[in-house]
Amino acid sequence: MALQLPISNQKRVVIIGCGFGGLELARTLSGKGFQIVLFDKNNYHTFQPLLYQVATAGLEADSIAYPIRKIFRDNKDVFFRWAEVQHINTTEQKINTSIGECNYDFLVIATGTTTNFFNNNAIAENAMPMKTVVEALNLRSLILQNLEKATLAENEEERKALMTYAIVGGGPTGVELAGALCELKKHVLPNDYPELDFTHMEVLLIESGGEVLQNLCKENQAKAIRYLTDLGASVLLNTRVASYDGSVINTADEKIIRTYSLIWAAGVKGNEINGFDATTLTPGRRYLVNESCQINGFENIFAIGDIACICTETFPKGHPQVAPVAIQQGTLVAENILALTEKKGLKKFAYNDKGSMATVGRNRAVVETGKIKFGGFFGWFAWMAVHLMQLVGFRNRIVVFINWVWNYINYDRNIRLIIRPFEKKNQA
Amino acid sequence: MALQLPISNQKRVVIIGCGFGGLELARTLSGKGFQIVLFDKNNYHTFQPLLYQVATAGLEADSIAYPIRKIFRDNKDVFFRWAEVQHINTTEQKINTSIGECNYDFLVIATGTTTNFFNNNAIAENAMPMKTVVEALNLRSLILQNLEKATLAENEEERKALMTYAIVGGGPTGVELAGALCELKKHVLPNDYPELDFTHMEVLLIESGGEVLQNLCKENQAKAIRYLTDLGASVLLNTRVASYDGSVINTADEKIIRTYSLIWAAGVKGNEINGFDATTLTPGRRYLVNESCQINGFENIFAIGDIACICTETFPKGHPQVAPVAIQQGTLVAENILALTEKKGLKKFAYNDKGSMATVGRNRAVVETGKIKFGGFFGWFAWMAVHLMQLVGFRNRIVVFINWVWNYINYDRNIRLIIRPFEKKNQA
Repeated sequence: MALQLPISNQKRVVIIGCGFGGLELARTLSGKGFQIVLFDKNNYHTFQPLLYQVATAGLEADSIAYPIRKIFRDNKDVFFRWAEVQHINTTEQKINTSIGECNYDFLVIATGTTTNFFNNNAIAENAMPMKTVVEALNLRSLILQNLEKATLAENEEERKALMTYAIVGGGPTGVELAGALCELKKHVLPNDYPELDFTHMEVLLIESGGEVLQNLCKENQAKAIRYLTDLGASVLLNTRVASYDGSVINTADEKIIRTYSLIWAAGVKGNEINGFDATTLTPGRRYLVNESCQINGFENIFAIGDIACICTETFPKGHPQVAPVAIQQGTLVAENILALTEKKGLKKFAYNDKGSMATVGRNRAVVETGKIKFGGFFGWFAWMAVHLMQLVGFRNRIVVFINWVWNYINYDRNIRLIIRPFEKKNQA
Repeated sequence: MALQLPISNQKRVVIIGCGFGGLELARTLSGKGFQIVLFDKNNYHTFQPLLYQVATAGLEADSIAYPIRKIFRDNKDVFFRWAEVQHINTTEQKINTSIGECNYDFLVIATGTTTNFFNNNAIAENAMPMKTVVEALNLRSLILQNLEKATLAENEEERKALMTYAIVGGGPTGVELAGALCELKKHVLPNDYPELDFTHMEVLLIESGGEVLQNLCKENQAKAIRYLTDLGASVLLNTRVASYDGSVINTADEKIIRTYSLIWAAGVKGNEINGFDATTLTPGRRYLVNESCQINGFENIFAIGDIACICTETFPKGHPQVAPVAIQQGTLVAENILALTEKKGLKKFAYNDKGSMATVGRNRAVVETGKIKFGGFFGWFAWMAVHLMQLVGFRNRIVVFINWVWNYINYDRNIRLIIRPFEKKNQA
C-alpha cells in the first residue's frame, strides 16, 4: 500500500534518517521547490555527542532529543513519517517501510551507524551499547542498579565486580564516559552509598590499539590519558577483549577482569538498508559513494554522513564518522539535487575540518583546531560552548546550560533515577 | 536471609514507601536516636501532582522525580533499600522483601494507592492508568503514537477514533489532564501535524457522578467545567463507563464512544501488603487506623497517607487522599514513635485543611482556602507557586520553572518524544 502524501508536481526527495546529515539536508533543501519526505524510526533527532551525560545522570534524555515535527513545523514542504525503512527498490524507484511504500525521484540515505560487536555474539548479548537515547537510559539504570546490588553483595569479590565499570574503546565516547564515571565516583556516589567503600570502585578504559583519541595529536592523546588517570581511571592500551559472559572479561593476553558492567564503544557499522548489491558496501557497512555523494551506479541516490564512504587520497578509508562531515555532506547533497534538476554540474565534497575535541571532566578537555592546540579549563569551556551551540532548540540549550552550571557549582549529577530498571532481555 | 544493616542498639523504624508521608516521617524522625530503614520499589520520590504534565509533554519526567538516596545523603541514620515489600510478619516483627528479611521495632506503612479499575478486567487491560512516572511516560508515548497513526488512517471514522482522548474521572487528575490535552490541541499539535484536521480532535471528560472536583464548592466546580468547555473539552457528567475493549467505550446509558486512548483516573485503592486480617482493611483497601495512626490492634505499627483511614465524624470515610494529609500524618507519627519510646501519651491527628486547588490550563485555575475562593489568572499563578515550592530539590524547581515560563511565552509543550513506544503488553 502506498503512503498517503499530498499529490504534487514537485519532484519528491526521500530522506532516510534525521541525524545531523538528514536534518541539515532537509533544512537546506526546504523552500527550493521539492516535496521532501523524511523518515526516521524515532520521532526525535538525537544529539549523540551528549548521550554519555545521559548515561551518567548529568542530563535528562529529553534535553538532548528534539521532536522532528517541531523542527519542521514551519516547513510546509517537509513531510515527516515515523517509520522504519525496510527495503529500497532501485528499479521501481520506491522504498518499502513499516507503514507502506513510497516512491522517490531522489533518495538520500542518512541512517548513520549502530554498534559493531564484530560478530562476537557473547559480547553483543552481554555488553551495553550506547548509541541511542534508550541505550543511554538503560546504561544509567544498570550503573545505579549494580550499586544497589553492591550494597547487598554477599562477599567482597562480588561487591568489587558490581563496582567495576569497564569501557571498551578509546575514542571520544569511551574517554568521555570514563571521565564522567570517575567524577561520579569522586563527587557524587560516596554520599549516596555510605555503606560502600568507593576505593573499590574501578573505572577501566580498554583500548585494543596503542593510543586513545586517534584523531588527535600525540601530545593531546597523552594529556587525555593523564587526565583520566588523575581522575582515578585505569587505561589499558593494547588490550583486546576476547570474550565477556556478563560477569567476566577475558582479554586476548589472558587477563581476567570481573565486572557486571561492560560498555562497548569500540566500533560502529553502517545501518544499511537492503536493496543494493554487496559491492556497494565497505567492510564497515558504509555505502561507497563518489565525491558528489552518489552511490556508485545511481545518479539520483545519495548517501551522507557516517554511512557514506568517499575514498580519497587524504582519507583512503573514508572521512571520520563525525557530525561536521555529515552536516557538510547534507549541504552538498542539497546543492547537488538542485544542480541535477537544473542540469548543472555537480559539486564535489571537500571536507572543512574545523578540529577535534574531547572532554574528560571538570576543567579537563583537549581541543585541536588547525595548528592550535589547547586543553585544561579553556579547552573544557570551549567544549561546552561548541556543544551548547550545536544543540537543537533554545529551550534545550537553556536546560542543558543550567544543568551544567548546577553540576559544576555543586559537584553534582542530579538525574540518578532508575525509571525503567534494565533487564538483559530488553537490550535492543 | 536477613538484610545487612549496621548493628545498633537504637530502635529500628522501618518505613515502607517514600511518597509525601514516608518522606516527611523519615525527615522528621532523623537525628532523634533511631535507626531508620526506608524501603521503596523506586529509587526516587515522585511528585505525583505534576505527573499529568509529564504525560502531556510539558515537563521532563526527571524534573518531578528525585533520587531518595540524595534526599537523605546527610542523614546518616537513614538507610534506603530499593526493594518491594512482600509480607509483614507481625508476630515476629519482621518484613519480607524482594532482597531479604528485615526486623522492626516500629513499622510505618506509607505505600499509597494504585489505580482502581473496580474489578473490570476489560478496562484494566485496555485503559491507561497514570499513577507512576512510567505510566505517565507510557501515556505520553500513546498520545503521540495515536496521532502518528492518525496521519495514516484509512478512513475518517478510524482517524477520529485515533484523535479522541477520553479521560474517566472528574477529580483533579482528570480535570488537569483534560485541560492540558485541550491546550496541546489548541496551541501545539496543529503545527506539528499539518496533515490532520484538529477540529476532529476530541477531549472527553467522563464522570459517573453529577459534579467534578468534589472537594471544591459548587461555584468553583461550575467554573472548572466552564473553563474546560471554553478550551474545547466535552464534559459528560452522570456517565458511567461500562466497558472498553481498546477501541470502543460502552457507557451504562448505552452511548458508544470510539477511542484508542482511554485514561482511567476514576479511582484508587490502597497498595496493601499481606500480613493483616481482612478486618484491618476498608473496601478501598485502606488500613483502618486509630486517631494516632496505629493500625487497630498494634501499638508499634502505623499507616499514614493515602493508605490510612481514620474514620471521624467530619470524615466518616477517612480523610481525602491528598499530599497535605500524608505530610501531616508523617509529622504526627514521628512524634508518636518518639512518645512511645519515652512512654508519653500519643497525639491524635487533627487535619489542618489549607484548601484545594486545580488548574485547567493557561490563566485558568480554581483555588479555595478557608473561606477565600478565587480563580482565573491569580488562581493559576497561586497553583504554580504552591506546586513549585513543594517540589523536592532546588534544581528541579529551576528546571520546572523555566519549562513553565517557556511554555507560557511560547504556547509550547516541548517534550513530545516517543522514547519508548508504548505497547499494550507492557502496561504495568
